[in-house]
Parts: sequence; structure tokens; C-alpha cells
Amino acid sequence: MTPTSIASSKRSAFGWNNAIAPVEKVAPGSTIRFECLDSSAGHYTRESTVADVSSMDFSKVNPVTGPIHLDGAEPGDVLKITIHEFEPSGFGWTANIPGFGLLADQFKDPALLLWNYEKTMEPALYGKNGRVPLKPFAGTIGLAPAEPGPHSIVPPRRVGGNLDIRDITAGTTLYLPVEVSGGLFSIGDTHAAQGDGEVCGTAIESQMNVTVTLDLVKDTRLAMPRFTTPGPVTRHLDTKGYEVTTGIGPDLMEGARAAVANMVDLLVQTHNMPADEAYMLCSVCGDLRISEIVDMPNWVVSFYFPRSIFE
Amino acid sequence: MTPTSIASSKRSAFGWNNAIAPVEKVAPGSTIRFECLDSSAGHYTRESTVADVSSMDFSKVNPVTGPIHLDGAEPGDVLKITIHEFEPSGFGWTANIPGFGLLADQFKDPALLLWNYEKTMEPALYGKNGRVPLKPFAGTIGLAPAEPGPHSIVPPRRVGGNLDIRDITAGTTLYLPVEVSGGLFSIGDTHAAQGDGEVCGTAIESQMNVTVTLDLVKDTRLAMPRFTTPGPVTRHLDTKGYEVTTGIGPDLMEGARAAVANMVDLLVQTHNMPADEAYMLCSVCGDLRISEIVDMPNWVVSFYFPRSIFE
Repeated sequence: MTPTSIASSKRSAFGWNNAIAPVEKVAPGSTIRFECLDSSAGHYTRESTVADVSSMDFSKVNPVTGPIHLDGAEPGDVLKITIHEFEPSGFGWTANIPGFGLLADQFKDPALLLWNYEKTMEPALYGKNGRVPLKPFAGTIGLAPAEPGPHSIVPPRRVGGNLDIRDITAGTTLYLPVEVSGGLFSIGDTHAAQGDGEVCGTAIESQMNVTVTLDLVKDTRLAMPRFTTPGPVTRHLDTKGYEVTTGIGPDLMEGARAAVANMVDLLVQTHNMPADEAYMLCSVCGDLRISEIVDMPNWVVSFYFPRSIFE
Repeated sequence: MTPTSIASSKRSAFGWNNAIAPVEKVAPGSTIRFECLDSSAGHYTRESTVADVSSMDFSKVNPVTGPIHLDGAEPGDVLKITIHEFEPSGFGWTANIPGFGLLADQFKDPALLLWNYEKTMEPALYGKNGRVPLKPFAGTIGLAPAEPGPHSIVPPRRVGGNLDIRDITAGTTLYLPVEVSGGLFSIGDTHAAQGDGEVCGTAIESQMNVTVTLDLVKDTRLAMPRFTTPGPVTRHLDTKGYEVTTGIGPDLMEGARAAVANMVDLLVQTHNMPADEAYMLCSVCGDLRISEIVDMPNWVVSFYFPRSIFE
């Protein structure tokens, strides 16, 4: 059966709003192919330069395709999304956008990395020696919030949205709480690769089409999004182990910032790369983990950089 | 060559203090076997009951064996610790200690799980159906701080200490900044298994002996501890994939608390286990990760529970 296909031209406004009319109404169990745009809506091309970072309109990031009305979905239900397949475009970009990102105070200048990759999803080349494993997912996937009016696309919410969770990829099942009739599902902001944290603020941003099945679970209490992965989640990255830096102290945010800054320093020292490229590389393949959160008053946040990138 | 062996009776006071005299002075490159105690100093036995949690003296947790003076180590150097081997005891415990742990406000009563495991480190049984993979490491590993006087053993610091990092296990190389002459290395608080976060405040706490090599790296700037793992770090856990819950909002600590509370709820619903046991199980095998930390103003903290525990 050919799934219903939703063109990206049928995208919503640049944001969430439960007053946006559905582009399609479907029954539970329907499989739908979404033509998605990348988070810049095609602003970047293979010919882009760093000057294009400054001309990006931040009010128009993360266009999403949708919304889809799921028959019978009501507040208090759960929408179950099974993610089947990504059709990658072969081109992606990573930017340091001034004012955005975990270390925005340290990286004030725009920077841009362009990526060309095979649709077979072999690791993408970084410079002469680097190879970044790919694992596509949709950065933005969510439902319309109950609260009326327009809402920024940038922050994720209880109903999902710009979750930027690296492991919501093919085979994963995502559960989202429904807050309005029909749920009003939208998806977009596809990524070819990202580490946990998305520390510089962007992943390997890349246009892709996505096929998912929408199901309905009636009368199920769900406080926040949850998901089930079909198998291991880091094996594309972990083969050679990790270099790990830490941030230790009473504030998790400061710990995360220190762990990432320490990894940028280490990469600059050991691989002689520009600091802003090290920062962007951390964003597309390194993982932020909380090693301990109980040894009062100091917590340990660790940043894991896969040795396979350069070994 | 038989390594120097340091008995646990030669342990330091219950805390860090650079005035504690070294139990041994060694040259860089020395391999040393440390007889360690568990974090309760043997308070718990196979006959312990939950009543023993209340009688535990929290001022005497985490005794460490040492300190070792490394010849030539001076402030501004780095101590390189290669971890070779753990000799497990076969017995461990996990407790919910009132007032301690990420969800201390929700789990106010003492609770205790006892673990018997094979020295071959096969997964330890939890109830009838659960199997918790083991991966031993030392929760507390560090150097004496420069600041004079006694310091609590509980919080980790720049010089290490109670880091509770699950992946500082056999084969890993740890780098710690030296703050005093000789470094004054100590180790203890051995764990048979722990998840990232150690969310209930305890791991599978278990007495073990540990063999490490101490090396010296002169004149190396190091802001915080870092380490290198020899290979993948989660393959003992990830075979079947994960159930993942999230916490979304502007505060990472509240996000972490929500993600863990949501996983406890999910385990209680799906496996019909008591909430305090679910909480302790999360602590010994589930991982806290920061999925995104840039989509202002809401961050996503995720809690990964390995499906292999019950499947």
C-alpha cells in the first residue's frame, strides 16, 4: 500500500497553533509519508558560505509539515508514532549561529560546515581524517498544545515539538500526550546526525522525507513524551570507545558547559582544529551524559566524544 | 611482577585532607593493588534487613584506601591512572537512604536490595525475571585537594573523589589534575553496577580489590578530570534497546527529576513492582542523558532504561 503523502508545501506556519486547520484527517493506523524541509527551509545550499549564516531569518526556522488530524484522538489520549523510514537528500549543514548554543558566550562569530553524504548513509567526511556516522531523525515531532494562540517552534513542550532527541529514529516508537481534538501532528527539522545535547545548537541539518504510522492509545495517562528503541542506540558511534571530559559542580548547566568547553580544548590540542569547528563537531557526534546527580552538592556532567571519528 | 598491595586497613580518614600522611611512596609507572572496602565499610551483610539502613552512620561512608605519594608529582602536573582489574566479592547492596538521592522528597522511607552475584560477573538476578548486567568500577578515585583541612568525601571535586562515573572501569585511563606534592591518590567505594546518574544515591555497592598503574604527566594543563575508554561503554546494557522517559523544561535538575519519576511510574505500571524498588533499579542500570540543551528555554533530559533487564 502506498502511504498518504503530504507535501512540504502543506506545512504549517512557523510555529505551533491549535487553530491551524489540518491538512489531512486520517484514521488510527494510517501510514503517512511527510515531505519535510530542513530547519532553514532550504536557505543553505552546497554553494553557501559563512556569510549566509548572518542572513538566515531566525523567525522562520523549523518549518513543520502538517498538521494531521487523527480521528478519535482527544485530550487524555496518547498518540503513538512508529517511525519507519527516512529518505535522505545527501546534503546537510551545521552552523554556529551567534546568540544560540550552549557556549554562545564563547563562540560569538558565525561559522558554517557543509556536509555531502551518500544516501546509503556511510559516515560523512569531516576534513581529511574525520568520519561522522549518520543516523537520521526528525528534530521536530509533536502535537498542537492546548493553550490557544501561536507558540514558538524553538522550545519543546509536553506535547513534543523541537525535542531534538537523537534516538527517535527509524524503528523507534514515540508516545505523545494529546491535548487537543485530533492531536494535530506535525513533523520536520530533519537531521542526518546529532549528539545528545546538540551543543552548538545545530545538528547535521538535512532535508529528508519521513514515513510514520499514527496510532491512538485511548485514555492513557502520560506526563511527558516517552519512546521505545528497537535496539542499541550508540553502536554507530561507540566502536573505538570515547574520549570523555567532565564538568563538576553544583549546577548542571555550568557542568555541561564546562564538560563541552573542556572537550573543545582537548580536540583543539590533539587534532589542531579551529575551536569553532571542534564545537560544531561536538554537536553532531558527541553526547552529554549526567554521570552522577546525587553526591551533594557537586554533580558530574560528562561529554563523550567517539574516538571512531578520527581513529 | 607482583604489584605492591595496599591493605584496606591502611585507609585514610573518612574524607580528604592533604595532611594525611601517605601510606606508601611509589615511582611513576608503579602498579598497585588496593584492597578496598565498600561504601558502608562492611555495614551490610547477606543477613541485613531494611532496619540496617537506619543504623548506618552517614559520617563514615566511602572509606578510601591510600593515600599514595607519587614521586615527582607537583601542582600543575597530571596523574594518569590506568585501571587494570577488579576482584569482586560476590555480594552487594543498594539502599534508598532517607534524605539522599534525586527523588529524596518522594522516597522518604529506607529501602534495601541485596545482591548475590557470580565472580564471573554474569548479570545479577533481580526478583524472578530481572537480570542486571555488571560492570565494576571504583566510585571514589581521586587526589588530595590543595585547600588545607578536612573535606567531606561525598562531593566530587576538580581533583576527582566521589566521581561515581560508571565508565571508569577496567581498561579505562583516567587523568586527574595534581594540586599537592605527590598527588596523594586514594581509591575505594567500589560498585558492581551503576547507571549514569546513580539516581537513588547508591549503586550495587560491593567490596572489591582494584589494581591500577600510576603514571605522571608533567606540566599539563587540565581543568577537570578526563578519561579515555578502550571500547564501547554500554554494550553490556543495550542489546535489546531502551525504554526512555523524558523531562522537559527550563531547569536541568527538574528535567532529570521528571524523567526519573516518569520511568519509575512506567516500571511500576508495566512490571507491577514497588515504586522504591523501581527507583533503586533505575539507579543500578538506567542512564540519565541530556538530549538537548539549546532549544531555549526548554531543555530535554532523558532517562534510558535497558530493555534487556526484563526481556
